[in-house]
Amino acid sequence: MTVDSTPSELKPLDFRSDTLTRPDEHMRSVMAAAEVGDNVIDTDPTIRALEERVADVLDKPAALWTPSGTMANLIALSTHLRRGDRFLAPRGAHVLVNELGSAAWLAGGMPDPLDHDAGPGRPRPETVRAAAGGTGPYYTLRTTLLSLENTHNAAGGVAIPPDEHAALVAAAHDAGLRVHLDGARIWNASVALGVPPATLAAGVDSVSACFSKGLGAPVGSVVAGSTEFVEQARRMRQMLGGGVRQGGVLAAACLVALDRVDELAEDHAKAATLAAGLRELGWDVTEPQTNIVLAKVEDVNATLDSLRALGILTLPMGGKVRFVLHRDVTSDDVTEALSRIGKGLSA
Amino acid sequence: MTVDSTPSELKPLDFRSDTLTRPDEHMRSVMAAAEVGDNVIDTDPTIRALEERVADVLDKPAALWTPSGTMANLIALSTHLRRGDRFLAPRGAHVLVNELGSAAWLAGGMPDPLDHDAGPGRPRPETVRAAAGGTGPYYTLRTTLLSLENTHNAAGGVAIPPDEHAALVAAAHDAGLRVHLDGARIWNASVALGVPPATLAAGVDSVSACFSKGLGAPVGSVVAGSTEFVEQARRMRQMLGGGVRQGGVLAAACLVALDRVDELAEDHAKAATLAAGLRELGWDVTEPQTNIVLAKVEDVNATLDSLRALGILTLPMGGKVRFVLHRDVTSDDVTEALSRIGKGLSA
Amino acid sequence: MTVDSTPSELKPLDFRSDTLTRPDEHMRSVMAAAEVGDNVIDTDPTIRALEERVADVLDKPAALWTPSGTMANLIALSTHLRRGDRFLAPRGAHVLVNELGSAAWLAGGMPDPLDHDAGPGRPRPETVRAAAGGTGPYYTLRTTLLSLENTHNAAGGVAIPPDEHAALVAAAHDAGLRVHLDGARIWNASVALGVPPATLAAGVDSVSACFSKGLGAPVGSVVAGSTEFVEQARRMRQMLGGGVRQGGVLAAACLVALDRVDELAEDHAKAATLAAGLRELGWDVTEPQTNIVLAKVEDVNATLDSLRALGILTLPMGGKVRFVLHRDVTSDDVTEALSRIGKGLSA
Amino acid sequence: MTVDSTPSELKPLDFRSDTLTRPDEHMRSVMAAAEVGDNVIDTDPTIRALEERVADVLDKPAALWTPSGTMANLIALSTHLRRGDRFLAPRGAHVLVNELGSAAWLAGGMPDPLDHDAGPGRPRPETVRAAAGGTGPYYTLRTTLLSLENTHNAAGGVAIPPDEHAALVAAAHDAGLRVHLDGARIWNASVALGVPPATLAAGVDSVSACFSKGLGAPVGSVVAGSTEFVEQARRMRQMLGGGVRQGGVLAAACLVALDRVDELAEDHAKAATLAAGLRELGWDVTEPQTNIVLAKVEDVNATLDSLRALGILTLPMGGKVRFVLHRDVTSDDVTEALSRIGKGLSA
Repeated sequence: MTVDSTPSELKPLDFRSDTLTRPDEHMRSVMAAAEVGDNVIDTDPTIRALEERVADVLDKPAALWTPSGTMANLIALSTHLRRGDRFLAPRGAHVLVNELGSAAWLAGGMPDPLDHDAGPGRPRPETVRAAAGGTGPYYTLRTTLLSLENTHNAAGGVAIPPDEHAALVAAAHDAGLRVHLDGARIWNASVALGVPPATLAAGVDSVSACFSKGLGAPVGSVVAGSTEFVEQARRMRQMLGGGVRQGGVLAAACLVALDRVDELAEDHAKAATLAAGLRELGWDVTEPQTNIVLAKVEDVNATLDSLRALGILTLPMGGKVRFVLHRDVTSDDVTEALSRIGKGLSA
Repeated sequence: MTVDSTPSELKPLDFRSDTLTRPDEHMRSVMAAAEVGDNVIDTDPTIRALEERVADVLDKPAALWTPSGTMANLIALSTHLRRGDRFLAPRGAHVLVNELGSAAWLAGGMPDPLDHDAGPGRPRPETVRAAAGGTGPYYTLRTTLLSLENTHNAAGGVAIPPDEHAALVAAAHDAGLRVHLDGARIWNASVALGVPPATLAAGVDSVSACFSKGLGAPVGSVVAGSTEFVEQARRMRQMLGGGVRQGGVLAAACLVALDRVDELAEDHAKAATLAAGLRELGWDVTEPQTNIVLAKVEDVNATLDSLRALGILTLPMGGKVRFVLHRDVTSDDVTEALSRIGKGLSA
Repeated sequence: MTVDSTPSELKPLDFRSDTLTRPDEHMRSVMAAAEVGDNVIDTDPTIRALEERVADVLDKPAALWTPSGTMANLIALSTHLRRGDRFLAPRGAHVLVNELGSAAWLAGGMPDPLDHDAGPGRPRPETVRAAAGGTGPYYTLRTTLLSLENTHNAAGGVAIPPDEHAALVAAAHDAGLRVHLDGARIWNASVALGVPPATLAAGVDSVSACFSKGLGAPVGSVVAGSTEFVEQARRMRQMLGGGVRQGGVLAAACLVALDRVDELAEDHAKAATLAAGLRELGWDVTEPQTNIVLAKVEDVNATLDSLRALGILTLPMGGKVRFVLHRDVTSDDVTEALSRIGKGLSA
Repeated sequence: MTVDSTPSELKPLDFRSDTLTRPDEHMRSVMAAAEVGDNVIDTDPTIRALEERVADVLDKPAALWTPSGTMANLIALSTHLRRGDRFLAPRGAHVLVNELGSAAWLAGGMPDPLDHDAGPGRPRPETVRAAAGGTGPYYTLRTTLLSLENTHNAAGGVAIPPDEHAALVAAAHDAGLRVHLDGARIWNASVALGVPPATLAAGVDSVSACFSKGLGAPVGSVVAGSTEFVEQARRMRQMLGGGVRQGGVLAAACLVALDRVDELAEDHAKAATLAAGLRELGWDVTEPQTNIVLAKVEDVNATLDSLRALGILTLPMGGKVRFVLHRDVTSDDVTEALSRIGKGLSA
């Protein structure tokens, strides 16, 4: 795949990540008016409002705000795992690949990546059961956690349906494992599957979720679970330096973001349009369920470069080229991108 | 010390911490207008502007924004220390007492608390030299870091003057140690001593500073040092989950905060007034150099309760009662507090 | 597979592990006569003699005695890895599965298990190259180590030949990775392949080896590498509590063990006999290259129980039944085991 | 203090440590005859015999053999402490100063060294109570362990009497702390005080003890406590690489060592002789309670060198010169040392 022309002065079309989304005027004005307090020694009222609303939306007893999804996952794993515990996660999971190994060195877990043998992004329940092993003598590894991811980013934003989710949770619990759900994009899964987020978090011992991806908040995630879990998580957040003071200014944006979950359907539509267009141009792309399109190309780095020359920004993901659709990329941008690629790149 | 009366409906006077300060309208409007970007995969322009300004103010090659002072210190210690390295810090230092032990379990350091034998908050250079030890055989502890704190919180907000600072840094460097400075309240020290912050950070290998204490920003700290140090620190920040996306909304507040350093003089004046007033009432209090007044009482918890009954909120610190003055407590509040105590509490 | 009879008073035939081997009279008498010293504050002369001989045999600049192979591997990984570094290892490797997760929580590594796509126990060099990835931005995982295992225990004691070994080391080094070799049974590999152990450790940055498996020493392993590596390893050994005093009594046994490497050929012959016999009885077994035979059975636990009822002791390994041949199981024991199985168990 | 002469060909008199003691013929012959087994997958009968006898002697439900006292302490601290827990220990304790910081980075503890305000080697019970603090809000340090040491090495081998021990344990337990006792030289304390070792370990949650110091075994320590504690400790021992196979050869020596506890009285007598002699020569030395003599000198390194020139080997300890008496230094050696010092060194 080579660049046929090198146009200049092109408006950049940024498909690198939905984390790029910027707060709009409304969100900023709500942030500016947020009621705040010292969330370490007291409770910030807006953070509390967010935590209560998220606990409700995810149907968990309690929730905790964190500065990032990475910290939300790290706190959950640190709380669930003892030193050296093995945990299971679908291959390519964010906690395995995109968090700088903190699940291992800091949370103390020895990961066992599971094949996606039930479909992209998820193992079969039997695979979980087999990997869990069971109890052995004192000198054997102890498997205590299954960490799921919905939508599964590296698998192309695939949404795991409620029945599969439930079967995986049941298999894990039967085998004595706890379950954490990395729900950074649980909102996308919810919209794509037409079920409430709580349905996709049903039964798990903890779930994280992000407001700073497709929902457009500048900063902020949560992790939810039992009251006891959140109590331990709060301490771990403080240990890691995630205990901020007047965080209500950020939580206010997260509350606005929560009102916009339905709008993610537009991102999914844009992804479908992009995928269809690329396929017409001869590209080998995934059928997007949510806001992510993966393209299989011969030489990832060369394609990234060629696209960049066309003013189209993307990132590599698991040996493919990843396009992420989000609120700051319009339908017209998608059309324009397809047009540039059509003219400028032979598949 | 007992409560002589229990007044009701008293306006709360909150001396617990300068972390309680809330962003005012101006700060909020600047935040609302901040230019932002994805600070993980790109650079947020306002965070960059803050980092560059702080690097300049502290006269270090580079600086890194963090969500909290605890994370700033944790990152610095993690970067300087190898597993099991001993580090020296004045007894009662924030990194020893107020960060949930993360300097040990996470940064990997074995602390050696030093007596304040040169005055409150600081050891003598010879004490540093003696504690550093020197190189022994492979099976002996290795001391590699001195962690200072200016102002020293637990010692009553004392400011360590430039010449003493320089002598401590020289002693540490002579002994082969690196030096980290916990400068959470370096702004207060700078104002109290009438020297630029950079003078108080001269020679150190890293320095942290906070905007969310007396300066009134809702969230945000920095850690500064060499370019190589900040490169490693950036990675550690991401590991800990401190890598946020559009953090410019917060950095904007920090930039406003930086314009207000001189206003800290008012907090110091209020502290002097409070201390003088308390002393007149027979209390045994420190002579405040900055914004903190420590009162030695017979029974800390009883005094905290008695003060609370008068609508005066304080916190314990190292076996004493700590009053912190800040922008959200006025001179009138100080007068009112002294009046309530005068009527309600026998020293 | 069911037990057809339950004989009583059977002599136990113990195929569970070559770690069961006991020191014989000669070894014990050499131990009893060993010259010793304090190996922490001085150097124990017999430990030094062993370390020098092993360094020579493995053709490395230096070597370090450790109380176990687990500690030898842990020290190597701890020395090579920084917090959160990803390391590659063939799926089922001892460091992944049999060391209680210490490679993750203690050495700080995030493992990426590689498929055995070049044959049992080893990945293809291209797989290593692809998994190594390369350098990405600061927020991406950093892969720094390949950990090989020869013979690979869980793959059935397979020996990786010198040319494949060399190609894997070259691929790793080309990709900027260090290489550790878990050579717990490198002696078996050497005998099976007819090449010196040094050939099988060529090019690696560290290699561990055990004397307490087939070679029959009661306690003791080593880890070898560069002088600088061993210097760091010595410190880590002390940290972990592996610094013993008059360890020469143990090292003496290791020296005797080293004289017996050639005798491992007998264990390999016994393994071949056992495998052939089992196959004749209809079992689905691996073709042993060294001293381990893996049998694929329908129900591992049931088979272990049935064998135990026949006085035949084995352990499970990766979903199979593992028979390990060693110096304390004779050829007659093998014949007897086959006879008992022939009579007592239908395949 | 300077060397007045530099004699040559002097028989070295080694007072550096009681870890230098070498197994004698009897001990070696018992080791050579020890019954052994695989202590990981089975139980080595001699290790079991030792563990049972030690549990009995220390009056604890269970005990666990370890390769070193450092590992015994590390296992105990790792088992008692959660990440970031503060633990108290008398200043200069072995776990603080002589174990390469593993109590912090590996066991996860944040130490708070206590002054020896009740006498050398021990704090007052009130000091323990005050340092323990009590429970604070979630963002405050949590103190959970007191680690004692008897005899206290760095304080000059002082033995803490049973009533003081009991009062410290009571204070700690009252404050909700667990208690670990580093009893590396508990045998010396027992002999010096004329009470059984169990009396000195009464009430503690765990206690370590060494056989490789004054008792003369080449390798081996134990840690004892509740059955549940030892179960967790066994797993941690395996994680650290301290799980050895036929360790009975070493445990046999430990059993012989246990028969020799009474002989430590001779070391104490030799220490008294040495101290008296040095004092007569004008040295400023401690009054030894057990087998350690500390000498306060002007320049430690110079004195170490001068003594070495006289063929007298010592080590520095906490800014003093430490002489350790043990079974491999005779009364004649003490006389000879005093004579050499008398002739060769002016105090």
